[in-house]
Amino acid sequence: MFLDSLNWRYATKKMDPTQSVPEDKVDQIVEAVRMAPTSSGLQPFELFVIRDPALRAQLREAAFGQAQVTDGSHLLVFAAWDDYTDARIDAVYQQNVALRGHTETLQGYFDGLKANYVPRGAEVNYAHAARQAYIALGFALAAAAELRVDSTPMEGFSPDQVDEILGLRAKGLRSVVLLPLGVRDTDGDWLAPMAKVRRPRSELVTELD
Amino acid sequence: MFLDSLNWRYATKKMDPTQSVPEDKVDQIVEAVRMAPTSSGLQPFELFVIRDPALRAQLREAAFGQAQVTDGSHLLVFAAWDDYTDARIDAVYQQNVALRGHTETLQGYFDGLKANYVPRGAEVNYAHAARQAYIALGFALAAAAELRVDSTPMEGFSPDQVDEILGLRAKGLRSVVLLPLGVRDTDGDWLAPMAKVRRPRSELVTELD
Repeated sequence: MFLDSLNWRYATKKMDPTQSVPEDKVDQIVEAVRMAPTSSGLQPFELFVIRDPALRAQLREAAFGQAQVTDGSHLLVFAAWDDYTDARIDAVYQQNVALRGHTETLQGYFDGLKANYVPRGAEVNYAHAARQAYIALGFALAAAAELRVDSTPMEGFSPDQVDEILGLRAKGLRSVVLLPLGVRDTDGDWLAPMAKVRRPRSELVTELD
Repeated sequence: MFLDSLNWRYATKKMDPTQSVPEDKVDQIVEAVRMAPTSSGLQPFELFVIRDPALRAQLREAAFGQAQVTDGSHLLVFAAWDDYTDARIDAVYQQNVALRGHTETLQGYFDGLKANYVPRGAEVNYAHAARQAYIALGFALAAAAELRVDSTPMEGFSPDQVDEILGLRAKGLRSVVLLPLGVRDTDGDWLAPMAKVRRPRSELVTELD
């Protein structure tokens, strides 16, 4: 059951460096990211799947030494578009035409997107793109939990350093969140035995009937 | 299988106003939102579950008339904290103490959060909080898909009007995304028969081995 999976997962603090996540599970997590819905279907981000130990050692330094980056077997890096451009939106439009056929409505919709988004400027557009990447992060976390793959969402890193190490700025990308995948080392993890803390429903949820 | 669910879902354009999502399923979707991980476990948002037809009619006007807001049976509104404050972070800290016991480490962690977050100012903090709400949106979308509940994530609305209708600003909240829940009217939905469009993996994903 889906909620059982969400209860099973936690932000793993200690991963076993001798164990690897099976590639078929990584593949399904990546596919969940790809299937995540985004505003107007733009999917304004890219995903980096990093196995290379030397590269992960560099990225660990950029993540304040957090050990999961190298103790896990895979590191996912979500990198959002730094801006919406005509070319990027046109590419998505062309893909829509290829799969659904050309219509005036479709063309008008994407023309409207370009007219609305591009003039807003890079900071507004990056902020919007980053939010979409967080939907995909949610899908990755949920997929990992369903597959009993441990993961640790991380905002604690230097975006400038990660961008530099991966050459993201030259690609028009900015790193937004890291997600190491691995296998929990339950005995070595101070967080593993602790109760999950969530705000009670009465504080989080308002029902208006 | 989880990926089958993600393929089943789509941004439903026409919902059948004569059908309702069973309350036990809505309950599980809400619980998925509550279980979503967030930065430092702050859960910096609230969720509004709206059944009231008159209120949803008002909100539909604020969402450019999109019919799913009233054709669905439930409307979820994700509203992010407008800022991080000492009081809000202290409340989460107290909940951690209640469930995990007091430690110097825990207290130091939350003292650090207050020292780092509060001075950043409302705009930076709201942007950060909104991203966390998008993780929870991802969990809600995935849970709904698993339960075969139709949903339509919506950014196309006037945040000022939604904030006004729900009195969010007085609660220190700002609306970030709407999610009507309902039952697809397949025959009436132009999008239902169309192919799902996603960027190919070769464009979205870079593997670094």
